[in-house]
Amino acid sequence: MDATIEPPATAATWMQAAAARARAASATLARLPAEARDAALRAAAAELRARGTAILAANAADLAAFDAAGGTAAFRDRLALTPARVEAMARGLDDIAALPDPLARTLAEWSMPNGLRFKRIASPIGVIGMIYESRPNVGADAAGLCLKAGNAVILRGGSDSFHSARAIHGAVTAGLRAAGVPEDAVQVPPDTDRAHVAAMLAAAGQIDLLIPRGGKSLVERVQAEARVPVLAHAEGLCHTYVHTRADHEMARRIVANAKMRRTGVCGATETLLIDAAIAPALLPAIVADLRALGCDFRADARARAIVADLPAAAARDFDTEWLGPVLSVAVVDGVEAALAHIRAHGSEHTEAIVTADPDAAERFLRGLDSAVVLWNASTQFCDGGEFGFGAEIGIATGRIHARGPVGVEQLTTFRYLVLGSGQVRP
Amino acid sequence: MDATIEPPATAATWMQAAAARARAASATLARLPAEARDAALRAAAAELRARGTAILAANAADLAAFDAAGGTAAFRDRLALTPARVEAMARGLDDIAALPDPLARTLAEWSMPNGLRFKRIASPIGVIGMIYESRPNVGADAAGLCLKAGNAVILRGGSDSFHSARAIHGAVTAGLRAAGVPEDAVQVPPDTDRAHVAAMLAAAGQIDLLIPRGGKSLVERVQAEARVPVLAHAEGLCHTYVHTRADHEMARRIVANAKMRRTGVCGATETLLIDAAIAPALLPAIVADLRALGCDFRADARARAIVADLPAAAARDFDTEWLGPVLSVAVVDGVEAALAHIRAHGSEHTEAIVTADPDAAERFLRGLDSAVVLWNASTQFCDGGEFGFGAEIGIATGRIHARGPVGVEQLTTFRYLVLGSGQVRP
Repeated sequence: MDATIEPPATAATWMQAAAARARAASATLARLPAEARDAALRAAAAELRARGTAILAANAADLAAFDAAGGTAAFRDRLALTPARVEAMARGLDDIAALPDPLARTLAEWSMPNGLRFKRIASPIGVIGMIYESRPNVGADAAGLCLKAGNAVILRGGSDSFHSARAIHGAVTAGLRAAGVPEDAVQVPPDTDRAHVAAMLAAAGQIDLLIPRGGKSLVERVQAEARVPVLAHAEGLCHTYVHTRADHEMARRIVANAKMRRTGVCGATETLLIDAAIAPALLPAIVADLRALGCDFRADARARAIVADLPAAAARDFDTEWLGPVLSVAVVDGVEAALAHIRAHGSEHTEAIVTADPDAAERFLRGLDSAVVLWNASTQFCDGGEFGFGAEIGIATGRIHARGPVGVEQLTTFRYLVLGSGQVRP
Repeated sequence: MDATIEPPATAATWMQAAAARARAASATLARLPAEARDAALRAAAAELRARGTAILAANAADLAAFDAAGGTAAFRDRLALTPARVEAMARGLDDIAALPDPLARTLAEWSMPNGLRFKRIASPIGVIGMIYESRPNVGADAAGLCLKAGNAVILRGGSDSFHSARAIHGAVTAGLRAAGVPEDAVQVPPDTDRAHVAAMLAAAGQIDLLIPRGGKSLVERVQAEARVPVLAHAEGLCHTYVHTRADHEMARRIVANAKMRRTGVCGATETLLIDAAIAPALLPAIVADLRALGCDFRADARARAIVADLPAAAARDFDTEWLGPVLSVAVVDGVEAALAHIRAHGSEHTEAIVTADPDAAERFLRGLDSAVVLWNASTQFCDGGEFGFGAEIGIATGRIHARGPVGVEQLTTFRYLVLGSGQVRP
């Protein structure tokens, strides 16, 4: 590790002790019945509701400091809590408690000719480190998802949300205590020292998995410096491809939703690819729909030959995750050309095809290696809730362990039970 | 990364170019039908057989250099090839070709109330980097397993086996060529420069997964320095626990096999735990069995009170992976004491209980978090072949992505297909 990011002794010492406590708590959690973990989640939800006033007061302190420092409105909105948002956090924990037990799953079961019987069963990962920006609800969600899967978690939220995070942590651990679950299962650092982040990155063998959630620079720093496995949530440069045989109304509806429902989420479409054969009839309507919603464009020459007043795209625009009301547009010649564009410019996150032709859909779905590929649906469905996972801790963009929305099942690992009758190995 | 291990430009340049070629090859491989991947494996096996003489000549060159440098006999045995060992490599590839396609699996399938249908399907990891010591057969096995799962692989074997590895690589790629599969799917560095290892460790975003296989220092270096996810094969400090209600004959047979069948494998038992209630009647026989096989002992005071001439164990002996004919022995008082010992001293690799009591077995199997736990069977069954995986690339000791024996299924990841009928997200 680069000497400049070596954590100073105090933060490193706290993190080592916290991770050891977390390890012990996760061993206890792993052996608790599902009912005990669920009771703890419901007790934590009840404490969040009971302490709503105190949590809002802590949040007000964070907001006052934030305003004094002159932060942006968008950031302030993410930091701010309201009674409704506190209730949403509590309901989130209740919802997680109601999910099926992810540790009750037998993932595979078989026998060998020598009579040995094998079972691959789900088991907790152990100790998870969550590094996130100043969105207080992320801490409550992450705690709930980790606990459900039998994991202990160390939560390091953004400094701007420190008082809010402490108040939420106090409520959650009060719930754990009330339910007889080790409160070391959820821990937060005692201060806003940034060295705690470095200490988490360096905690090889003590933290089993780091989950960074936030802006690109945070995620990239964690990926570059971590000595611990990382489940990263990086870029989503998503494409929607409108095939020659697309239903016009469906294509308009899907493109408008995929781009404009929310432009700041990683599953938002950034580039529209449209077949040359359908573009003259359909592209003007799509442009008009999106303009009415406030969207701007960066279009290639073939698209501008159809809708003359589209702004011209620079080459790099097709490699840009806009995360805003801008859409790159290119006209292509069929499925293979669309696949070639996506392979060259995409981030293997989420892509959709709109077509009435099952063969074209099959070629598109099988021809890509994106974590999520959709046929006749909006890319904005890339979300744990929409996948039926109940809740998600983020969208994984790596290739190891989990891809796409990460719910409670993805927060487990597995182990093997082998049942014999005295077998020895020849 | 520490500046001292920054790879020099030549090795780094080769690795970047190799990884880019591997990426393109893996994209092609991922879209090939299983029949094409299997045909390539069989063609590679045929080339290994056809080039047997040349491979043995290359190996003779490695052995001559090794002997001139005065290497050890054990190391030499791992390095040496024979006609039978070349045939075993070829048969290994044929066996992998005969395995079911790991990419044909639909891992989960469900629908949501809005009509969206979800499929989680297996998909290749992409580009794998394999770093191993001078055992030429490991390269052939790893190439076969990676290809079967649709992955490209860069193989960096030990310098002592360089000529052997090149000759084997030449045969494998000739097979790929003959079968029309991109030969960039299997690559080896052009020379023995150790900087190639550093370049692999630094290849974030270019290599998707590193698999180190070899001694503890190699694995620890990779874990400490890699910027790439690692599937590590580290320590196996495995326990066999003989419960009060064990069948005496079965316990003797299992302990002798678990310790002495092969003492250098990670699944070999290093510590025997035996219940106080059964130890006076059984421990002398176990000791006699093992002594007849050449095993030495490190025993706690309670064991030495039963078999007086057992050497006394130092405290650290229970934390030692002997990897040789030595067994640590401790007398314990029941399942909970055995669990406590294993939790304190084990490496969460492989542990076994011998008992006729299903309740005791259940408490043992559920009370541990080891990757593999066995009931009435030898710990030496921790092996991909014995698990029915057909072949293994190693035994994973981390907690992310895969645990225990790593076969072709564990060399895959997954992605989602989402089938709609025009759905947009509210």
